[in-house]
Amino acid sequence: MSFSLGIGSNIRKSPYFDATVADGVQSFSVYNHMYLPGHFGDPQGEYERLINGVVMWDVGAQRQVELQGPDAAQLVQYLCARDVSGTAIGQGRYVPICNHDGNLINDPVLLKLSADQFWLSIADSDIELWAAAIAAERGLDVRVYEPDVSPLAVQGPKAARLTANLFGEWTQELKYFWFRETSLQGIPLVLARSGWSKQGGFELYLRDAARGQELWDIVKAAGAAFDICPGAPNDAERLESGLLSYGADARLQTCPANPFELGLGKLVDLDGPDDFIGKPALLKIKTAGIKRRLCGFVIQGDPVPASEHRVSVMQNDIVVGSISEMACSTRLEKNIGIGLISNTIADDVDNLSVSLDSGLRSITISGLPFIR
Amino acid sequence: MSFSLGIGSNIRKSPYFDATVADGVQSFSVYNHMYLPGHFGDPQGEYERLINGVVMWDVGAQRQVELQGPDAAQLVQYLCARDVSGTAIGQGRYVPICNHDGNLINDPVLLKLSADQFWLSIADSDIELWAAAIAAERGLDVRVYEPDVSPLAVQGPKAARLTANLFGEWTQELKYFWFRETSLQGIPLVLARSGWSKQGGFELYLRDAARGQELWDIVKAAGAAFDICPGAPNDAERLESGLLSYGADARLQTCPANPFELGLGKLVDLDGPDDFIGKPALLKIKTAGIKRRLCGFVIQGDPVPASEHRVSVMQNDIVVGSISEMACSTRLEKNIGIGLISNTIADDVDNLSVSLDSGLRSITISGLPFIR
Repeated sequence: MSFSLGIGSNIRKSPYFDATVADGVQSFSVYNHMYLPGHFGDPQGEYERLINGVVMWDVGAQRQVELQGPDAAQLVQYLCARDVSGTAIGQGRYVPICNHDGNLINDPVLLKLSADQFWLSIADSDIELWAAAIAAERGLDVRVYEPDVSPLAVQGPKAARLTANLFGEWTQELKYFWFRETSLQGIPLVLARSGWSKQGGFELYLRDAARGQELWDIVKAAGAAFDICPGAPNDAERLESGLLSYGADARLQTCPANPFELGLGKLVDLDGPDDFIGKPALLKIKTAGIKRRLCGFVIQGDPVPASEHRVSVMQNDIVVGSISEMACSTRLEKNIGIGLISNTIADDVDNLSVSLDSGLRSITISGLPFIR
Repeated sequence: MSFSLGIGSNIRKSPYFDATVADGVQSFSVYNHMYLPGHFGDPQGEYERLINGVVMWDVGAQRQVELQGPDAAQLVQYLCARDVSGTAIGQGRYVPICNHDGNLINDPVLLKLSADQFWLSIADSDIELWAAAIAAERGLDVRVYEPDVSPLAVQGPKAARLTANLFGEWTQELKYFWFRETSLQGIPLVLARSGWSKQGGFELYLRDAARGQELWDIVKAAGAAFDICPGAPNDAERLESGLLSYGADARLQTCPANPFELGLGKLVDLDGPDDFIGKPALLKIKTAGIKRRLCGFVIQGDPVPASEHRVSVMQNDIVVGSISEMACSTRLEKNIGIGLISNTIADDVDNLSVSLDSGLRSITISGLPFIR
């Protein structure tokens, strides 16, 4: 199925939108009420460049929620299920965010810019609304807002060399998820060693939307030596790498799930000194026992079409889980998927199946990630 | 510009999705993290059927936030800037919802199903997250969640006859925004006299997602006598009718605006006995004076392309407003738009302009709606 996407005024363009159009973007999705490129006409080539070279991604749709003020640190800790008290300035941390019922509602990277300034670099839900309401209802002295910040990612094994050429050799020493406030030819940005792939790379958090085209052009020009191409967060790679996608693998309204189920239990600090939203609910959930787990699936048979997803996992006509997304992995030469399976099902069962448009398929459970 | 839309697992399909695909949907947008049809290949024909006949729209993306429990009424009033205390069971009301700073964050229709059960039928922002956080932080005894409810709209001058044929003559007496819990061939739904056009019509709030195709087929079959066709919320008609679009004309992150600026001042009850979110901020805003107003614009010259929007309104090289959306109105034989203009600018100035891709255009201010 192929449909056109209406370019309308209720969905926002990223600062790189015109640049991606000029460079041949063919497909978009929508993320945080913003156009997010899907591919530039050669999904397989873009995947291979991500694995073997370097790609540049307009991930401006990964919006920031800034918490700034005397009570910012207190609010951050109250919002996050992870103990973030030890976070250093210049450090980023992956944090599960739950609602009061203990269900995941986002899984951002938290960036600590100063003692009283934080960014939540969010997945696809309106955390600004939620966090601002909590701050106001608790009477905290903190400003919650969306700053003018739009990430551009460079990902792939050659991203480190490219980044060093652009910013200097100090970038080689930057640890994963750490960042520095810097600039590039006068363009203000935050450079972080991060990105939504496991191929290595950086995110350039542009701090002036008016300079999106300029930043795109600089990265593109410097990347030419590495045969850089534009691309987008890649479904096959994220499945191979076992990266969680809030909105696909879990979403409050469509597939509510708690962080224990989603493999994020190690990031939930129930024993910490501080209260956080969802803590009482998560204590109860943990005591009652976790019912499902996130896992990989291998799907037998011909390559699955990318458009099939959200299918029920069956065992003898009983639904025991679901696959939220699947793709054909060319590196593994297998169909792989990610989803939730009941904890009553052992890892090695051999009688699971899914019903696809193309017919019934046998599936097996796999650990995550598929590829380290 | 035309792009394809990736059908992915992080965006949800409506219960009518397969029905719209079978009936030839060509274009989608994304609304509340869900696919929303754009058109079925003949936008002008769909517009004309809306004006002169009857169309059916998959507006499942208009999600409901249900507030249910002993404190539901208290929470509803705290969330809404409008005094809703006099709302009867079976009555709907259009309500501005503001954040603590007094900026609009949604403009739903509130439906009162019982003394302790309400729906907010929302525009495009995650009000469930926001409302649930407020309820929990205030310790209210109310459940906030998204029920299994997906509206199907029939709109146009022939919608009333079609609805009477389907549900009975009592529907002719239903007042605007009022509704009744009923069923159609055993399919549970709420029938409301409402919809996002000014051509008259009803919304069928389907209460069982599994029966979307069935409901679509029933309405389509009964509508055949009226030459019904599938369609979608229509930009030209909404501009002619002066309907506000949260997300386009205002959005917290892109175009923050308060209800006074957006022509919703009459729906803000600052003198009421109850507190509501944003009331102190709105009192200050009103005292300080309102700086902008929502208005219509007439744009001179050739028909404007539908893809142009969010353009600055200029007076002698100074930005004095913005047009959030524009379209060519075939009924008016004019280009029309909607947006915000500074209150320093009189309605009858003759030196305003916008810069479009096709060149500079003179514009004039118009009252709203363009067509009653």
